[in-house]
Amino acid sequence: MGEFELIRQYFAAAPCAQGGAGVVLGIGDDCALLEVAADEHLAVSTDTLVAGVHFPDPCDAFLLGQRALAVAASDLAAMGAAPLGFTLALTLPQADPLWLQAFAHGLGVMAQACRLVLVGGDTTRGPLSLTLTVFGRVPRGQALRRCGARPGDVLCVGGALGDAAAALPLVLGQRPVAATLADPLLARYWSPQPQLDLGIALRGRATAALDISDGLLGDCGHIAAASAVALYIEQERVPLSAALRALLPMPEARQCALSGGDDYVLAFTLPAGHVPALQAAGWPVAVIGRVEAGQGVHLLDAEGRVLNVPAQGYQHFPATAPVSERSSGPQD
Amino acid sequence: MGEFELIRQYFAAAPCAQGGAGVVLGIGDDCALLEVAADEHLAVSTDTLVAGVHFPDPCDAFLLGQRALAVAASDLAAMGAAPLGFTLALTLPQADPLWLQAFAHGLGVMAQACRLVLVGGDTTRGPLSLTLTVFGRVPRGQALRRCGARPGDVLCVGGALGDAAAALPLVLGQRPVAATLADPLLARYWSPQPQLDLGIALRGRATAALDISDGLLGDCGHIAAASAVALYIEQERVPLSAALRALLPMPEARQCALSGGDDYVLAFTLPAGHVPALQAAGWPVAVIGRVEAGQGVHLLDAEGRVLNVPAQGYQHFPATAPVSERSSGPQD
Repeated sequence: MGEFELIRQYFAAAPCAQGGAGVVLGIGDDCALLEVAADEHLAVSTDTLVAGVHFPDPCDAFLLGQRALAVAASDLAAMGAAPLGFTLALTLPQADPLWLQAFAHGLGVMAQACRLVLVGGDTTRGPLSLTLTVFGRVPRGQALRRCGARPGDVLCVGGALGDAAAALPLVLGQRPVAATLADPLLARYWSPQPQLDLGIALRGRATAALDISDGLLGDCGHIAAASAVALYIEQERVPLSAALRALLPMPEARQCALSGGDDYVLAFTLPAGHVPALQAAGWPVAVIGRVEAGQGVHLLDAEGRVLNVPAQGYQHFPATAPVSERSSGPQD
Repeated sequence: MGEFELIRQYFAAAPCAQGGAGVVLGIGDDCALLEVAADEHLAVSTDTLVAGVHFPDPCDAFLLGQRALAVAASDLAAMGAAPLGFTLALTLPQADPLWLQAFAHGLGVMAQACRLVLVGGDTTRGPLSLTLTVFGRVPRGQALRRCGARPGDVLCVGGALGDAAAALPLVLGQRPVAATLADPLLARYWSPQPQLDLGIALRGRATAALDISDGLLGDCGHIAAASAVALYIEQERVPLSAALRALLPMPEARQCALSGGDDYVLAFTLPAGHVPALQAAGWPVAVIGRVEAGQGVHLLDAEGRVLNVPAQGYQHFPATAPVSERSSGPQD
């Protein structure tokens, strides 16, 4: 039996590959079989992470396993889909048992947190990269699209922004910082928490939604374009974490929150009347702006004056990668 | 707009990304949405192809597009699933418009042949590789598993075997051969035809099935193990194409058919009584052996004597790749 066959057996026996509602057949046959109720649709999203482009190489395998699944699962949250399962296509230069053990552990921790079951995949030899395809279920007609924002809606986010972008120089070891300052930000980078339950709570309330992967301003541009509306963002209302404010002076911290990516926090529009009930129920909903007729994304200062929107183009992993543009794809 | 954003738009506008029964929402939002009827299951399979490991680099982009989707779609055929859609995770060292155009054309030709719609994916920069995840629908309880073969069943294949393995030295330019000899074999390598309609016809008839990707003997071992039975293969009955027999002397031709992979022809077991009706309906069903109590795969000569089974270990792309073992995965 070859070493890659052993990897196959290793993943098939992993706790994250066992059971799961909606998983009729998991690893081991030509296909997995999933179950979707008659009043549901299946939501599907695919994400690829390439070593040296989307994450440092080498990096901690446990953290990589966590992060890869979180990034993929966040697209289910953005759609309001209930998590079901995922496939893992893992390409490795060699089969290193310690690396695999740590990677599978990180993957398993995030799979449990996200209630996702490993249902299949492929393991091949080659330059290190991972492609994860995630599956979720959403009641018919209730998926959170990008195209439904309406003038009069408010624009909200599901939590503080900018932490992951601020963590990037720390991930790359370019900025010596005390652990007390660095650790909370590094945690946001390496183990983002897909807002799956918030996405489900927004069904029937949010008119548009997505997860912020490329930066608030850039991603809000997708909602504005898909919905054919203008979004006005009051920069003073964009929530910043205490950890971010402790690390960086305000202009830099705000820049991370507005243009930095990798946070995997939801951004969404909805009628203002829904906000109090959501907040009262404990959901982290921060109003940061409003939807108006028009187009594009507009940034406002504390006095309501329109500011120049900073140039976009957040790079998920800019510092050591060999090329200037990292990633985009048929689905964001 | 960056070049990878242009690729995104390119695939979103491609003919193979338009429409499709069961595709509620395709490229352009956080997730695609698929529809599965109440009496159906969704079948899912993922395959990765790495440059220099699973295909020559460089190679013809049109042929690569065709072959990548055919390899993935064959798993749907093996499960008896009706084709629905697929995602493409494409990692490229650079965005070359001519390469992309040819690749998308090949992908589109195979997508049309397989009735599969591109519903999403990801495009990233990195060493050339492709991960395709395919989706199909199968009536509940009618998926063709590997575990149902019963003593008394016959073992069949869906066509001639060995052509793709015989083509490998031609693909690599290692064996100068006249085009009239080479072309039919090269076609079998570069554009295998997933037996989707045969898989559907086998629902309710076949007791076990898979597609031959790693060689007849090795893959039949999966059926024998999953079903806890013995398979006896009469080597004289294994069908060989005229093209294969024209290229190679019998011992080599037979070796390709028994141990060569990449054919993506179905192998299946079923009660002998089903065979005449299938053949009368025009399905390419060749009986090559039988199922008995026991275990393992046993090869028989023309007199019914048990032969030594040749050592396994077909390599999909052995000649120029840097390592000795190519691929295996959570799903075969």
